[in-house]
Amino acid sequence: MPLPAKVQRGSGQLVIENGFSVSAEGQHDARVDHALQRFMKDLSLETGIPLGLSPAANGKATLTVHAEKASKPYPELGEDESYTLDVTSSGATLTAPTTLGVLHGLETFLQLVGPTAQGFAAPAVHIEDAPRFPWRGLMIDVSRHFIPMSALYRAVDAMAAVKLNVLHLHLSDDQGFRMESKEFPKLTELGSDGNYYTQDEMKALIEYAADRGIRIVPEFDMPGHSTSWFVGYPELSSGAGPYTIERRFGIFNPAMDPTREETYKFLDKFIGELSELFPDPYFHIGGDEVNGKQWDANAKIQAFMRAHNMKNNQELQQYFTERVQKIVAKHHKYMIGWDEILSPGMPKDIVIQSWRGPDSLAGAAKQGYRGLLSSGYYLDAMETAAEHYAVDPMSGEAAKLTPQEKSRILGGETCAWAEFLTPQNVDSRLWPRAAAIAERLWSPPQETQDVAGMYRRLENVSWRLELLGIRHRSEVSAMLGRMAGTDNVAPLQVLAEAVRPLGLGPRQDTDEKDKTEETALTPMNRLVDAVPPESESARDFSDLVESFIAGHFQDRRAETEIRDELAVWRDNDSALEPMLQRSTVLRKLAPVSQNLSALGAAGLEALGYLDRGERAPADWKTQTLATIEKAKEPQADVYIAVVPAIESLVNASAGLAAAPAGGNK
Amino acid sequence: MPLPAKVQRGSGQLVIENGFSVSAEGQHDARVDHALQRFMKDLSLETGIPLGLSPAANGKATLTVHAEKASKPYPELGEDESYTLDVTSSGATLTAPTTLGVLHGLETFLQLVGPTAQGFAAPAVHIEDAPRFPWRGLMIDVSRHFIPMSALYRAVDAMAAVKLNVLHLHLSDDQGFRMESKEFPKLTELGSDGNYYTQDEMKALIEYAADRGIRIVPEFDMPGHSTSWFVGYPELSSGAGPYTIERRFGIFNPAMDPTREETYKFLDKFIGELSELFPDPYFHIGGDEVNGKQWDANAKIQAFMRAHNMKNNQELQQYFTERVQKIVAKHHKYMIGWDEILSPGMPKDIVIQSWRGPDSLAGAAKQGYRGLLSSGYYLDAMETAAEHYAVDPMSGEAAKLTPQEKSRILGGETCAWAEFLTPQNVDSRLWPRAAAIAERLWSPPQETQDVAGMYRRLENVSWRLELLGIRHRSEVSAMLGRMAGTDNVAPLQVLAEAVRPLGLGPRQDTDEKDKTEETALTPMNRLVDAVPPESESARDFSDLVESFIAGHFQDRRAETEIRDELAVWRDNDSALEPMLQRSTVLRKLAPVSQNLSALGAAGLEALGYLDRGERAPADWKTQTLATIEKAKEPQADVYIAVVPAIESLVNASAGLAAAPAGGNK
Repeated sequence: MPLPAKVQRGSGQLVIENGFSVSAEGQHDARVDHALQRFMKDLSLETGIPLGLSPAANGKATLTVHAEKASKPYPELGEDESYTLDVTSSGATLTAPTTLGVLHGLETFLQLVGPTAQGFAAPAVHIEDAPRFPWRGLMIDVSRHFIPMSALYRAVDAMAAVKLNVLHLHLSDDQGFRMESKEFPKLTELGSDGNYYTQDEMKALIEYAADRGIRIVPEFDMPGHSTSWFVGYPELSSGAGPYTIERRFGIFNPAMDPTREETYKFLDKFIGELSELFPDPYFHIGGDEVNGKQWDANAKIQAFMRAHNMKNNQELQQYFTERVQKIVAKHHKYMIGWDEILSPGMPKDIVIQSWRGPDSLAGAAKQGYRGLLSSGYYLDAMETAAEHYAVDPMSGEAAKLTPQEKSRILGGETCAWAEFLTPQNVDSRLWPRAAAIAERLWSPPQETQDVAGMYRRLENVSWRLELLGIRHRSEVSAMLGRMAGTDNVAPLQVLAEAVRPLGLGPRQDTDEKDKTEETALTPMNRLVDAVPPESESARDFSDLVESFIAGHFQDRRAETEIRDELAVWRDNDSALEPMLQRSTVLRKLAPVSQNLSALGAAGLEALGYLDRGERAPADWKTQTLATIEKAKEPQADVYIAVVPAIESLVNASAGLAAAPAGGNK
Repeated sequence: MPLPAKVQRGSGQLVIENGFSVSAEGQHDARVDHALQRFMKDLSLETGIPLGLSPAANGKATLTVHAEKASKPYPELGEDESYTLDVTSSGATLTAPTTLGVLHGLETFLQLVGPTAQGFAAPAVHIEDAPRFPWRGLMIDVSRHFIPMSALYRAVDAMAAVKLNVLHLHLSDDQGFRMESKEFPKLTELGSDGNYYTQDEMKALIEYAADRGIRIVPEFDMPGHSTSWFVGYPELSSGAGPYTIERRFGIFNPAMDPTREETYKFLDKFIGELSELFPDPYFHIGGDEVNGKQWDANAKIQAFMRAHNMKNNQELQQYFTERVQKIVAKHHKYMIGWDEILSPGMPKDIVIQSWRGPDSLAGAAKQGYRGLLSSGYYLDAMETAAEHYAVDPMSGEAAKLTPQEKSRILGGETCAWAEFLTPQNVDSRLWPRAAAIAERLWSPPQETQDVAGMYRRLENVSWRLELLGIRHRSEVSAMLGRMAGTDNVAPLQVLAEAVRPLGLGPRQDTDEKDKTEETALTPMNRLVDAVPPESESARDFSDLVESFIAGHFQDRRAETEIRDELAVWRDNDSALEPMLQRSTVLRKLAPVSQNLSALGAAGLEALGYLDRGERAPADWKTQTLATIEKAKEPQADVYIAVVPAIESLVNASAGLAAAPAGGNK
């Protein structure tokens, strides 16, 4: 995963043994040497076989790698990333036009290796592979909650494993300014609570990522989403100040003053400084969600707008964006920003990142602008991998574009907004779901319509990522231990596996109803913060129920499995209840646990009717569906993920045509 | 954990909230500042509450820390490590004579915090604490298998959390030389397969450890266990050479030549160089297990012995050790070594590390030598935490020593020998068991005789360590995924939780019987390499069975739990069998899985008799106990850990007096 563009299976397999060796031919590039070192380490990790100890026997390495030429010193958009990998039972060859293809091909080889009846082995195969899109990104918001460097390194490791090639860092927002500026030290001194990256730290990360073929694109959001700038530099803003770091989440009034020349002088110096730090030719200026209230309230700004014949705030923002674009261009960068930056006066070399959707992207492409899709790829929406996988940058209006227009759609970026992201849950918010999006952006669309196949590959990716040190599974267990104050969390684990967290929007809606707004200072220690976005148990259970119903209730083995699972849920509340009462962070889960118990009981009753071949009585059905409706309501910011499957069982037992059990939702 | 020396519970508790603040008073020491930063980060991690953002309200911090004076720049043996911690519902105070006490007290505070019905809180308490022994060590053998720096950092983090204060690195042995020497670069160039620590890396680790109150003691084993030295410098040896790195495990012939002055010139330079790198005053020269064969076979050495009236190789080694001790002393270090270094000519300032046991230690103490206990603390023996916990440095002959002699017993070191240790299983081999040994070495013996209490504390430590980034649990899951080639490992997990690995000795014995000797190049990818040394499931199950039997089979709830567990084992083989067949690394587990299944069935039958109040028939009993005997035999280098509990059930059902179910063994 991602599935290669072209795969031909051969016969036999290459068994990995102690003597396994690699050699590099062709253009010498230190990054290839580093990659081979990592490869041997990872292959050893993946097989448990000590490797790297023996030189190639009789001069012929097991895996020969050949890159025609070195890729650019820092990876760039549009470089050739293709490779050809041949594996036979006697050896393997990896050839690529550039270093980048070698990096990708080595990752493919590592994914081919698995336990077989003859030992760890890679199947004989001929692969010709190249990405569908040149821009395959992951955006991490490090502002709303600070994400430490160690987590970014883990993200780069995982990205390399699934062939994502752009790490986009959302480095400033109302809630924090996270990147050191030597020109303007107060940005972090006053705007970061001490949580920021030094330039040295960022340089090291850039090198580390470049070594793995990954670009780093910085974003500094302007003119809105910029309160944290104004804590140290209130003169940049359109209001009076003073400012403090914003703790709430949402869209706020503070915005830069587009009418003062000093603003552009500041930005020129700032962008100049940061353009040197970040080697990538693309520089992201955000540009989203300006509410304009500070502009409306500022008489000087209003006068400026009248003097320049600007009809509304949108035109004022256009003016700002055009000025900033010239500064960005002056520092030899291409500007990238969210949908809002697009206006007729913009040069054609800017890139639009679309949070609005493929149609908006298609509109931009028609006007000659390049774009990236992010709508549908928001990891904080807590959707399933299948839901993200179904989103395609070339869908909707984009499907109707001419080939030339289509070529302007560069790819996409999955985004992790950080309202509810912390150093403790960042891995499970990103992985393994981002790997499904990576496949959408790399692999041929016609080969990747099978969701079941995607999940099989995703399961394989998941344990490999833990082996590489990503903590998407282990951090969940640790957080359950934290809530319970013990390692002995079996009943809490049962509940945790049966639920899924509310996405960003619904969770904030709940806040509004509760009047307990969550801010950047709110503890993130509840079940909603710990459980993975997608419940694997619920997916497996749904699949089981679906196939049981489709098989007309004949599969005894499936029935036993379903019955056992339902009994576990039914009986779990009595074991869990004392644990919930001991801990405030758990206490609000009591109704969730009771609902799960009721669902388990309902499912067992339904199974009983099915087992006896009785049609469930109508009043039982009515009552039970009412229980189910109640269990659909989120509580303590989690949904019970197994509800739809149990509803299917109940409906089936009442003799209705069985609807598919549905996915995780 | 470790339990403090003196604890008085107060009333109420200190609730941890957003405004929690800390301040340091007294002697200024940068290490206290670092410790407070880490403390706030860890407290935030432990509670999920964002901390560190607000200064102390009205000048009064929630936790006030006071160290009378700074401890030594690098921690030293015998410094005052005591502290007093007062927690009330309104705040907390931590006072200590030195920085070291502050470090320990902060860890104690972190352990006090847990989820309560009023939120995360620490109970009101008055603690006066100081260690029982000044030397509380962890030895890691990084030679037989190389352990990367990242794992050493994790070890230091975990050690600090449980108040261990010496990291002893076994840096050279036959299988690899792991420490860069600038004087003698061929030591690592030819003796390490490229797997070694640079001096810069080691300096960074030393600083990191010192910041956490932890000493680092280097060991370079001589004159035996030294093949890796001779690959680059064959002239040091007593044989002809040339040498290659030893891949097998055991005791080998190569030994340094004690009769050549060049040997001591080399060691003088080498020890001089490394004594500068490692600031700790103790320098470990190994000294164990010289078989003397190279000495016997070398005519010059034999002539030297005759000329110096040496009767045997032991006297020759004494001569060597005395010469080396003078070199160590010349470089301002105290020599430390294994039992074998002790001889009448030695000065009293050396330290004996005993792999032979408390009696040997007591003997040394009587002669005026200081010592450390390691016998009984070998983590590679794969014993339970309870077994290690029962070992006391002051037991046996040591209990009979005079107070002055007793003061020479400095403490102990738990040892992780690396025949079967890899970067992938190192965390689970060390933790959480080493925490039980840490408690033995810190806490008053009279307060720490209750094994059940120890396990309760150990469970608490376990999830905290995962939260801190130790991978003792997560690496197990990742390795199961590796063996199965999928993330979907439920039946393999069931088997994994029911077994425990063979210890070093029995595993090597099996090798001998099988004639498939395991070496440093052998893949370490089987279940034995993945499962934790102690089966928690087996322990819980044993406790359950024991209490069920003790309660005369009346506890229905316990019976249901036992029945459910037994049914899972009985039914597991059919789910697991296809997975085992697909993978060579799993295939040999088939008989283990079948035995577990048979045990589950036998236990259910026993439960059936008990349930019906029938005495199980004698022939059933005979047959069943034969099944159990068969299941006791190790297979694929694992034991089934649940055997004794099932045996107890079977015996009980046959109407015999029920023996206690026993522990994990």
